[in-house]
Amino acid sequence: RRPTRRGRQTVWKVWGEAQAINTGDAMFAIAHLALSRLSHLNVPPTTVLHAVHRFDETCLRLTQGQHMDMDFETRDEVGVDEYINMITGKTAVLLSYCTEVGAIVAGRDERTIDNYAAFGLNLGLAFQVIDDILGIWGDESRTGKSAATDITTKKKTLPVLFGLERSAELRELYLSAPADRQFMDHVVATLDALGARQYASDIAAEYSTAALSHLKETKPGGEAGMALFQLADMLLQRDF
Amino acid sequence: RRPTRRGRQTVWKVWGEAQAINTGDAMFAIAHLALSRLSHLNVPPTTVLHAVHRFDETCLRLTQGQHMDMDFETRDEVGVDEYINMITGKTAVLLSYCTEVGAIVAGRDERTIDNYAAFGLNLGLAFQVIDDILGIWGDESRTGKSAATDITTKKKTLPVLFGLERSAELRELYLSAPADRQFMDHVVATLDALGARQYASDIAAEYSTAALSHLKETKPGGEAGMALFQLADMLLQRDF
Repeated sequence: RRPTRRGRQTVWKVWGEAQAINTGDAMFAIAHLALSRLSHLNVPPTTVLHAVHRFDETCLRLTQGQHMDMDFETRDEVGVDEYINMITGKTAVLLSYCTEVGAIVAGRDERTIDNYAAFGLNLGLAFQVIDDILGIWGDESRTGKSAATDITTKKKTLPVLFGLERSAELRELYLSAPADRQFMDHVVATLDALGARQYASDIAAEYSTAALSHLKETKPGGEAGMALFQLADMLLQRDF
Repeated sequence: RRPTRRGRQTVWKVWGEAQAINTGDAMFAIAHLALSRLSHLNVPPTTVLHAVHRFDETCLRLTQGQHMDMDFETRDEVGVDEYINMITGKTAVLLSYCTEVGAIVAGRDERTIDNYAAFGLNLGLAFQVIDDILGIWGDESRTGKSAATDITTKKKTLPVLFGLERSAELRELYLSAPADRQFMDHVVATLDALGARQYASDIAAEYSTAALSHLKETKPGGEAGMALFQLADMLLQRDF
């Protein structure tokens, strides 16, 4: 519940919590109404229904991911598999829907739709894991966040979970030590020694490769196709 | 933000606010997925889209009604017209959609669909105004709420707004007096003297008559038709 987001005051901060919740519900309805408008653009009814149905499946999956994320905050142990499942729901399925729905609305075959969905899903997973790496080892002047911010908040991101699974000392630190400067230095040094950064970078690279391979399989043409490759490059080639 | 609703603990009370908001979002997605399933029941795609579109228009209108309701709490003056607009959005459009969607899914003509929508809308308005009357003059042993509960909470319901428009003394009381027993007795006596109860009863009767007239126009048949008349009777003939 942050008072600002991307440099602007959040709705609850300006108008209060109740109005913010209600505004979120309104935007949810508006998003559906926007999808309905495809009917006026000569998109066949069954195609619009397909797009709407996948949208709602995605929204439900997002709430499951959000639920897991909140649940993790109160738990001492979280497995890497659970974590991947959580970021799939919380982040990747949204990107997946965004790339999939284009192929659905364009009336493409099932195989192409699946490839676009897999492109977005892997892109989202790669993006999140890169974000996790930047949250510990990122350059403050580039990310806009102070370095190691995910350590001082004791956030259970992928490199941290990797470390916690392998080091009893780290588990002890996360349970009891105050999240001060000394804690931060100690944790980062331990993660470095355990190879957590390399581990996460390898996983990010796997997802990136999978994303680009699914995109290539769709043989996207023209300017729009170029834009998709550029988008992937932009999201994946963040300095880390 | 009540800790209990209909005798059970609310979600936020048991699981916290964040999980409650997320659960609401999940239920919103699930409601849409339920509508999608009409496609598997041999309902034509254009009909399903119509039902979904009207659902989302209704949801958006509900958030507008909710917004007005919250806005009214912080305002000294609210007009009767604004109030009707608010309860239309907050309550009546939901009942309207419930009755309308049956006619949509059944593939009935536009006129019949409109009559079902108008039946539910007027039923919802009548129900809300009756609720307002019971909130001041209701019999505690029948409503389950303590009598005049809407007065002690200074809730701006229809009879109160009628009184506030007509009595400077009442306006003064609402602005400054503590909501104690003396306040309650004074307000109820003033509303009685102004004819606020009769005013609200007349409006409830108008909406009730309109609801039943729209229902009759649809000539609903069989058991289901009987059930709709019974529903209307049950909702409208609450003792007051």
